[in-house]
Amino acid sequence: MAPPLYRQSATTLAQALARGELQAEALCTALAQRAQALEPRLHAWAALDVPAARRQARALDQALAAGAAPGLLHGLPLGVKDNIDTAGLATAYGSSLYAGHVPQADAAVVALARAAGAWVLGKTACTEFANMHPCATRNPHAAAHTPGGSSSGSCAAVAAGAVPLALGTQTAGSVIRPAAFCGIVGYKPTPRRLPRAGAKPNSDTLDEVGVFARSVADAALLAGALGAFGARGAHGADRAKVPTHDAPPRLAVSLSPRADALSPAMVAMVEAAAARLSNAGAKVQLAAWPAGFDALFEAQRRVQTFETARALAPELQYRRRRLSRALLALLDEGRALPAADYAAALHTAQACSQRLDELFGPAEVLLTPAAPGAAPRTLKHTGDPLFNRPWQLLGCPCITVPGGLDEAGLPLGLQLVARPGRDAELFAAAAWVAAVLDSEVISHLACA
Amino acid sequence: MAPPLYRQSATTLAQALARGELQAEALCTALAQRAQALEPRLHAWAALDVPAARRQARALDQALAAGAAPGLLHGLPLGVKDNIDTAGLATAYGSSLYAGHVPQADAAVVALARAAGAWVLGKTACTEFANMHPCATRNPHAAAHTPGGSSSGSCAAVAAGAVPLALGTQTAGSVIRPAAFCGIVGYKPTPRRLPRAGAKPNSDTLDEVGVFARSVADAALLAGALGAFGARGAHGADRAKVPTHDAPPRLAVSLSPRADALSPAMVAMVEAAAARLSNAGAKVQLAAWPAGFDALFEAQRRVQTFETARALAPELQYRRRRLSRALLALLDEGRALPAADYAAALHTAQACSQRLDELFGPAEVLLTPAAPGAAPRTLKHTGDPLFNRPWQLLGCPCITVPGGLDEAGLPLGLQLVARPGRDAELFAAAAWVAAVLDSEVISHLACA
Repeated sequence: MAPPLYRQSATTLAQALARGELQAEALCTALAQRAQALEPRLHAWAALDVPAARRQARALDQALAAGAAPGLLHGLPLGVKDNIDTAGLATAYGSSLYAGHVPQADAAVVALARAAGAWVLGKTACTEFANMHPCATRNPHAAAHTPGGSSSGSCAAVAAGAVPLALGTQTAGSVIRPAAFCGIVGYKPTPRRLPRAGAKPNSDTLDEVGVFARSVADAALLAGALGAFGARGAHGADRAKVPTHDAPPRLAVSLSPRADALSPAMVAMVEAAAARLSNAGAKVQLAAWPAGFDALFEAQRRVQTFETARALAPELQYRRRRLSRALLALLDEGRALPAADYAAALHTAQACSQRLDELFGPAEVLLTPAAPGAAPRTLKHTGDPLFNRPWQLLGCPCITVPGGLDEAGLPLGLQLVARPGRDAELFAAAAWVAAVLDSEVISHLACA
Repeated sequence: MAPPLYRQSATTLAQALARGELQAEALCTALAQRAQALEPRLHAWAALDVPAARRQARALDQALAAGAAPGLLHGLPLGVKDNIDTAGLATAYGSSLYAGHVPQADAAVVALARAAGAWVLGKTACTEFANMHPCATRNPHAAAHTPGGSSSGSCAAVAAGAVPLALGTQTAGSVIRPAAFCGIVGYKPTPRRLPRAGAKPNSDTLDEVGVFARSVADAALLAGALGAFGARGAHGADRAKVPTHDAPPRLAVSLSPRADALSPAMVAMVEAAAARLSNAGAKVQLAAWPAGFDALFEAQRRVQTFETARALAPELQYRRRRLSRALLALLDEGRALPAADYAAALHTAQACSQRLDELFGPAEVLLTPAAPGAAPRTLKHTGDPLFNRPWQLLGCPCITVPGGLDEAGLPLGLQLVARPGRDAELFAAAAWVAAVLDSEVISHLACA
């Protein structure tokens, strides 16, 4: 007997949908039921409009029946983070300030997904304006633990099987960290590979749209359909190529100069993963952290703080009292930050970007921790993006894959980092790494 | 007797307003009258909400009377381009698709202007999604001629005295070209010096917010209040410093390799301006256009086309029939452009950016044509941004100042270009250049 639809991979579902062996509407019924059954426990959704989802799914079924060629994502459901606009579907940016706000138009990335045949099940909960103040979402592996943020609902929904695919955004670590905490795959592209129009801005330098799935192949399917594998946003023929890796990739391991912030379980996982990958045939070496790269952690934070304080100027000025204390503190800090410090942070980014080869050496991909450890036992914050900050500022594409479990059985994420523009190579390496590490076995469906 | 309020500079008005010698509400009455009287001829406004403007002005008067410290823009009116969001004021992005659309929040740059004490008179007309299809705006100097675009209404309104200051955006030449055609000052900053959140995206790489005024000092007042002179978006003390130039600047002249596209009047104006500036004490030399820089013209166009086709994905996919033929052709071209060509264009930009010193040599500022000539006699298109494309792709800040008149008495714009990040130095040089060229005399108020 086939497993229930909510357990199946996007890749498997896509094949059945494209052949007409599975109706998108039937999938909608199954997933809506799964999402609604989980919701009292997960709080993953900011808006779930099942009738609208059903209409989209049915229209796709009808188009296929009428002879239309199926898109790469034909019939696949998508969770869309609440800071990404969806036409006609409430989009509150994770803030009560925008409760009931309904955008007139889709964000560009949502339109591209729909054009490829996807339909939107609903908006996934996110932290306040995709900053630090948490939403109500719980970690599907352990309800007292944060799912991470800011893309909390997207990760919880994918991990628990409410949707196989979801969209998020990352300014510091909002894709990689929650994906790691929820035991799924998260992908943050090279800057601007996925269009940002219609995603609520925080930091013009740093914001990116990202992708979530339960396997590297599924993430590649969505990322590829959106144009991530061509040179910066390809469409047409090259978008369909999901990268593969014939030879083992050349890897370098780095715990970074902030290894003191890592849990023992995370250190052990990264070291064990490196050993297993080496045994499986990969060339694995230690990456030497170049002098001056230490400054990237703080520089990323300054760029983010300075720019967010300006991008959220309307909210800060007019609705100050409706912002959380944590966000207010960040915005006030950003307003007070001397412009010269901001300029120096951008200069640090530029200088280090030009020296990336010193860090990568002959390696194609760095292996690094996706987070300090597993999801902390708290719902009051979403964990620390420390280990994501340098890559975000450097514009490196990143993928996290499940790398193991900690002593409590919670997922630990292994972050793979490539040079800017090497998104396809990164996916190919991630597929190889995930296969060796049995990532899909580690990432058992939460709330099974 | 003092000149009528609509003739006075923003700098003069700001002083009277800050001292309480002039009420913002009285200024609102005068300018609303001027704007409404001109409108049947100019068609500069997409939305003019005089009661709302009066409420803003009155609130500013009351705050000052109650003892509040005046902001840098206290009481000054602003025209805001229709592709920049304004809370509660219709914002249609120059397209019938968004007729009646009222944003819930201000764009960041509007919020910053309001925080400095400005009030919004209305939304200025722009071309369809700030692309090529013209709006109804006429050139205030000659009604059969285009005002340029895409910031058509902002430039016409400032040139004709309906507002002393306005905001616009530029992706190719949408600030510099219409400012030149309308005989005013336009400023396009170093990338990200002014926050873009809330401006409708076209090209994530290229889009910038810009400023219009009738003098360099007025433009500097607005740009400085918005944070353009600190290192990338400064606020606080350094925002108030309006740059000045004690010694004559070091200049280099270039007609670019596309000089064949220039009108004889434009060539003569640039050469005459260079001679006058040299006579006034500036060191002026010829800039040698480095090998490979020719490719910037087409590279800019490719980046814009590729990215705009993705940023406008929702409109292209769902409302295709409501787009102009010109925009559709551009978007279809962008969708068809191979990703490798787009990547190559970005690579061209990066390679030339690293060689900017070869072009500038010892000069601080380049003198170049702002447009092929004066405003063409047509309302069917808005002129050619050819001479703006390279600087936009290189991320150079640009200012246009009126440089003279052509044989028909229409304004010719001189474009000043600086290295990225040198916005304050650019303003200082522009102030010196404008003083030598008597730019403010050339830029007589249109529709006097």
